[in-house]
Amino acid sequence: MTGPGYTALAAGLPASVPFVGPEAQERALGRAFRARIGANESVFGPSPAAIAAMQAAAGEVWQYGDPENHDLRTALATRHGVAPDNIVVGEGIDALLGYLVRLLIEPGAPVVTSAGAYPTFNFHVAGYGGRLETVPYAGDAEDPEALIGKARETDARLIYFCNPDNPMGSWHEAGTVQAMIEAVPDGALLCLDEAYVEFAPEGTAPPIDPQDRRVIRMRTFSKAWGMAGARIGYAIAEAGLASAFNKIRNHFGVNRIAQAGALAALSDTGWLAALRTRVRDSLARIARIGAENGLKPLPTATNFITLDAGGDGARARALVAALAERGVFVRMPFVAPQDRCIRISAGRPADLDALAEALPDALAAIE
Amino acid sequence: MTGPGYTALAAGLPASVPFVGPEAQERALGRAFRARIGANESVFGPSPAAIAAMQAAAGEVWQYGDPENHDLRTALATRHGVAPDNIVVGEGIDALLGYLVRLLIEPGAPVVTSAGAYPTFNFHVAGYGGRLETVPYAGDAEDPEALIGKARETDARLIYFCNPDNPMGSWHEAGTVQAMIEAVPDGALLCLDEAYVEFAPEGTAPPIDPQDRRVIRMRTFSKAWGMAGARIGYAIAEAGLASAFNKIRNHFGVNRIAQAGALAALSDTGWLAALRTRVRDSLARIARIGAENGLKPLPTATNFITLDAGGDGARARALVAALAERGVFVRMPFVAPQDRCIRISAGRPADLDALAEALPDALAAIE
Repeated sequence: MTGPGYTALAAGLPASVPFVGPEAQERALGRAFRARIGANESVFGPSPAAIAAMQAAAGEVWQYGDPENHDLRTALATRHGVAPDNIVVGEGIDALLGYLVRLLIEPGAPVVTSAGAYPTFNFHVAGYGGRLETVPYAGDAEDPEALIGKARETDARLIYFCNPDNPMGSWHEAGTVQAMIEAVPDGALLCLDEAYVEFAPEGTAPPIDPQDRRVIRMRTFSKAWGMAGARIGYAIAEAGLASAFNKIRNHFGVNRIAQAGALAALSDTGWLAALRTRVRDSLARIARIGAENGLKPLPTATNFITLDAGGDGARARALVAALAERGVFVRMPFVAPQDRCIRISAGRPADLDALAEALPDALAAIE
Repeated sequence: MTGPGYTALAAGLPASVPFVGPEAQERALGRAFRARIGANESVFGPSPAAIAAMQAAAGEVWQYGDPENHDLRTALATRHGVAPDNIVVGEGIDALLGYLVRLLIEPGAPVVTSAGAYPTFNFHVAGYGGRLETVPYAGDAEDPEALIGKARETDARLIYFCNPDNPMGSWHEAGTVQAMIEAVPDGALLCLDEAYVEFAPEGTAPPIDPQDRRVIRMRTFSKAWGMAGARIGYAIAEAGLASAFNKIRNHFGVNRIAQAGALAALSDTGWLAALRTRVRDSLARIARIGAENGLKPLPTATNFITLDAGGDGARARALVAALAERGVFVRMPFVAPQDRCIRISAGRPADLDALAEALPDALAAIE
């Protein structure tokens, strides 16, 4: 009874769990957080129309979801001015990133990203044996020229770029992003993660050219649409690339309730504008709370704001832990020098009351 | 602008979509089915407690689900008399099969299954470059000895066996399955898919030994629990194997609403017994409808029944199509000689009224 043998690749992967959710922290602390403003979830929730659609769909959940995601892809195509064949719906951007890496990356193949960008992307690259090639942030923003340069230098097949950026909240204008797309080396693909783009100023997302095979865009219902727990996102890509996902994706993988909720969310056209106002107001208050406590708010085009805690990573980590002990869940960048900061998601007034109460005490505790 | 290069493996996979859902058939027909009894969904739905829990969770869907699936794993561990570390929760058995194949199968590695068993398992094996080694059914049941023999002969690392069997509905007793586990060659793993086991007679599932590294069991909330659209299933395995999934799984991939629904479903202890009675009665009526129309019902330990249409695959395919044209969605085995049959899932009285009405007409149309 020797047990199964793993692939060489699987055997070499770390067995530790890389992702600790707030629930695990709550179990360790022995109590629930007062404010859950650490995962860039939209605490304002989804549109009431989406909630109603999901509640109705719960009674129909005995049926598998449509594996073609037909109705949702049609609605998304209309929204973005592309064809349904340019849309891939998946179990969140996380799953779509995994499929994308699987399609493109052989073991040992170089993949370019910024040091300190999305850990789940890195997890997938490592999981398929790719070799991460990183460039540093420029100031507190991703560096498009350095990313392209590194891709040329390493002959990378895939480049990951998040705009607006998580975890820093910074962003580049559409012209800069379009220039980056134009500069993608032959045989390479730019993965443009636009998870937060609904919060960004007009003119942040470059126009979508459904013929352009140099870029795939990732979008999600987890952030602005308030449906992180529903696990539904989509990619926009040239039709050939989009159809390649059919070779490997979990065809029946998208939750039927999520499909119904996403479709209803799109049709509630007023919701997003109202949400943007609430998020903007909330982030302004977090900036004030931070500034009152000596933490410098950075500019943001997302639903979170990054505050410079004025020290090193150890200080920021201590502050995140001290806030957690006081019932406030926040997170932080994990690579220097960005790890001098903490990252706080927009919250309701009560969430920010908890933050305002806990922050001075947490800061005093770590001095 | 050449577009991205795919891996050699991805480039070699078929671009066609292997899975056609009933919604696609409805779109092609231009109308909804009167009876959706083809995908072994539980048309009786989940427990009212599960529906209520999912409706309540819809309002909380702005939060990601717990990536550790802690509460559900704890409840499942209690149910099965194992530890939470023996449970892996995933986005349905389909996703778990994909993870399992990815952990174990290098390109070119042999994998053993029955010809005509689960297409999604085969899809994953092909997707990771594994080499399928098949054995025929013995009569209309999977052949444990032949599966083990083929594994020895080919030095396979993974063996897939579904008990009770889909698509035939046949089953083996626990003693036979346990003997199969005992005979698993060193270095190999038996994937025991028990998706339908809640419908089977007592004594179909062998006792669970959480130390046994020769077998991993797959269970789902899609069948008896009536939550196919929620995409939630689980594996039961030795703790080391179970933890290996953490190396590659989509940690935040399980829908939060599904987690809540599954947990509530487990706590509604009376539901399953009542469901079994409804399913048994429904299958008995389908057997009668079949027999009255000259189709021979096969024994079943599942929530579907397979009827011998008395001819070859072409005849059964024509019958399935003729039933679809008449508003009744059913499916069929796809490998000879089992493809002489059609497969019908348990339905409500109205679903079976539609079947009883359509079947004579459909049979007349294909003569």
